[in-house]
Amino acid sequence: MSDSEIDTPIAQTVPTPPTPPPERHDEDDRMNPDFVREVIDRVEAGDNEGARALVEPLHAADIADLFELIDRDDRRALAAAVADLLDGDVFAEMNDWVRDELIDALEPHQVAEIAGELDTDDAVAMIEDMEADEQAAVLSAMEPDDRAAIEEALTFPEESAGRLMRRDPIAVPEHWTVGQVIDFLRAEDELTTDFWEVFVVDPQHHPVGSVALSWILRTPRNFAMADLMQREQTLIPVDMDQEEVALRFQKYALISAAVVDPAGRLVGMITVDDIVHIIQEEAGEDVLLLSGAGEGDINEPLRDSYKARVRWLAANLLTALVGSSIIALFGAAIEQMVALAVLMPIVASIGGNAGTQTMAVAVRALAMNQLTRSNSLRTIWREIRLALLNGATIAILIGIGAGLVFGNPALGGVIAVAMLINIVIAGLAGVLVPLLLDRLNQDPAVASSVFVTTITDSMGFLAFLGLAVAAGLVSH
Amino acid sequence: MSDSEIDTPIAQTVPTPPTPPPERHDEDDRMNPDFVREVIDRVEAGDNEGARALVEPLHAADIADLFELIDRDDRRALAAAVADLLDGDVFAEMNDWVRDELIDALEPHQVAEIAGELDTDDAVAMIEDMEADEQAAVLSAMEPDDRAAIEEALTFPEESAGRLMRRDPIAVPEHWTVGQVIDFLRAEDELTTDFWEVFVVDPQHHPVGSVALSWILRTPRNFAMADLMQREQTLIPVDMDQEEVALRFQKYALISAAVVDPAGRLVGMITVDDIVHIIQEEAGEDVLLLSGAGEGDINEPLRDSYKARVRWLAANLLTALVGSSIIALFGAAIEQMVALAVLMPIVASIGGNAGTQTMAVAVRALAMNQLTRSNSLRTIWREIRLALLNGATIAILIGIGAGLVFGNPALGGVIAVAMLINIVIAGLAGVLVPLLLDRLNQDPAVASSVFVTTITDSMGFLAFLGLAVAAGLVSH
Repeated sequence: MSDSEIDTPIAQTVPTPPTPPPERHDEDDRMNPDFVREVIDRVEAGDNEGARALVEPLHAADIADLFELIDRDDRRALAAAVADLLDGDVFAEMNDWVRDELIDALEPHQVAEIAGELDTDDAVAMIEDMEADEQAAVLSAMEPDDRAAIEEALTFPEESAGRLMRRDPIAVPEHWTVGQVIDFLRAEDELTTDFWEVFVVDPQHHPVGSVALSWILRTPRNFAMADLMQREQTLIPVDMDQEEVALRFQKYALISAAVVDPAGRLVGMITVDDIVHIIQEEAGEDVLLLSGAGEGDINEPLRDSYKARVRWLAANLLTALVGSSIIALFGAAIEQMVALAVLMPIVASIGGNAGTQTMAVAVRALAMNQLTRSNSLRTIWREIRLALLNGATIAILIGIGAGLVFGNPALGGVIAVAMLINIVIAGLAGVLVPLLLDRLNQDPAVASSVFVTTITDSMGFLAFLGLAVAAGLVSH
Repeated sequence: MSDSEIDTPIAQTVPTPPTPPPERHDEDDRMNPDFVREVIDRVEAGDNEGARALVEPLHAADIADLFELIDRDDRRALAAAVADLLDGDVFAEMNDWVRDELIDALEPHQVAEIAGELDTDDAVAMIEDMEADEQAAVLSAMEPDDRAAIEEALTFPEESAGRLMRRDPIAVPEHWTVGQVIDFLRAEDELTTDFWEVFVVDPQHHPVGSVALSWILRTPRNFAMADLMQREQTLIPVDMDQEEVALRFQKYALISAAVVDPAGRLVGMITVDDIVHIIQEEAGEDVLLLSGAGEGDINEPLRDSYKARVRWLAANLLTALVGSSIIALFGAAIEQMVALAVLMPIVASIGGNAGTQTMAVAVRALAMNQLTRSNSLRTIWREIRLALLNGATIAILIGIGAGLVFGNPALGGVIAVAMLINIVIAGLAGVLVPLLLDRLNQDPAVASSVFVTTITDSMGFLAFLGLAVAAGLVSH
């Protein structure tokens, strides 16, 4: 949230229509394609006023959505048509790639003006990915105060609390009364209007407690803040990674939290509305990382998507060669009994599925801090038992099926045993690989599936073809 | 959040240590295994007082974590040792499965007492999964007011706004001044203490605006709420699905929102702290659903996990048979050239990877309402171009490699073309299958991967073996 257009609360007196207007969204709350089409048609017909009339009542987040949904060429045209509606709030809500594309078309002073409207955290998000020279040009066009705040934020590591925080927490001394706090809030024009807690600090500016605004409102004026404040509070170190920050907000159900420097002094605050999209992103990225799709955004430039994905496919090509080499060892066996070639992908494929199931569960549990050294052994043992149950079930199905189809009970037995072995190996690999990567301080979502698939492919071929030879179905 | 232990704000005057205490967590913010071990050791040694001394300073969310991390047997023993610390807040923070397990060991009147401490939404979450007769026993042991509130909540569909909401929003008439609102909040003892906005309603109790508490605090007493309120507000229909509610909170950066009945009357409010775990869950479940791991919780009972996973593996077994049948058609070809059996899994496997990448991106984009009918065609076209780039790269690599290894340039050419074809098919399937399932109002995360893998496996085998025959490498 931002207080961009509003200097003081009382400025908000003009009635505006409720948002989001239902006809602009379909029953799934997605922006209505007909509405989007209508906006573009008007822009293309040169009816900028008409387009503006449609866009103007939209919430900033919906304007951002609109830009994401339309073609690259249409984006420039629409931006020109509704230039005055493209304020900081819209850019703050916009997909990174789409925003960068639009910003590229603006002059540094225009970007500086938009960034100046924003809270520091949103302004930083807007300019942190720019080329160094463009960033410098934008910063030099900003007001000195804003520039100093952004430059300081940029000194903190990317994706750290220091970049997320706002620098304007309301901090009051312990000895103040509720009445003094209210009078202070009413008298000071320069304070932020979007805050949910007041922080109480000692003379060295260390946070010693916090008071939710509802408590201030419900308490008589003569009470001291020291008696009212909650002393238990979650402090966020300024260099903490945003993923950890998000987990803390979630775990302790925080609305806002104080950010402290290494000396323990209050330097900022983070509010939950800046965290929800991080919670979303961090929770949703596992599926993209496990699949090797990188950032996996449909608005990502094609070249970036290509680089991310082809690297993964090439890595998988190398690991697929491991499985192929194992098959090559059994070339003579396959020539004798082509049924082996028909059945072997089934063993590898179901093993891969079983491994992926376990891996997904382990990766999520690690990401949510649910899987630690305290319950690793228990979880591994759980996955082994589950793999034995799954493996036995699938082994019986495929064993009977293959035995009947090929009229060869021994072949049925071989594939059943190979399937059981591979599903158990898959279960073990699915939990051990992520645990090991995590222990090595690697993100288990990034590399687990290459290892697990290599293991389940190779072991599937090896177990099945090896057992076929060992059982005397074919000579080697 | 709950106001369980606190009747009025001023009760909170006793200093308590800051939480979470660092020594109880490791550098990754996970609960320290040595700390967990120490608690269990004390319980097992019969030193309940010692265990209690360790647990007592913990935040409710950390006590809940502690129970999740330990063995089933230890959970009962620890629960007995620290029974008085197990209040509603701890149960509200606990993993569903672990909570159900502990609650099973309690008498209905004990459950009723704990549920009575909670906000309605948390109490509902606690008892909604109970067997009907146990639920009835708990409800009949509750205070009539609490029971009525819970029974009403249970009339709304599971996972709907009606189950999530709290029934105690602060609502004031438009003509009140800021001063009147503050006096009302100070005078009424029965009001909730955890709220972040005051809702303004008309005489029919329809919400007409909302005022953030910070605005009330920063505005002189004589201002009318009608002049101060924000008229743009996001109203949540009482029957809206929680996933939609979560998306709205995220999109519009809401702290709290009014819930309205079908007649548009204010019936409750939802606050963001009750939403963050839903955002987390909904965003994180895609990876579990795509892998076929069901709810994928490491605390889920083994039988439930087995049922969820084996069903998926059996479905994949059926689809693997499609690929096998295609191989069987080419048995004669494989007998003539065993290299085909060695190479064919590579084509299928890389195709599967490419399909999974595209599918993960499409499923996430659909879940976040980023992919709609407005940009479906553009996204499909983007994936085709990406598949052509990826396919050409991998085709060249495998074509040259296979040609050299087998000393057979024609074989290299065949696998290269088959790989390109399969990666393009994979890219198309990866985006079309989720789009189609979504259009049919099915969750694309649930079934996409079975279809996509079947397609990439079958087409991989068919393209490669078919081309080998067509190119005259082998006779058919």
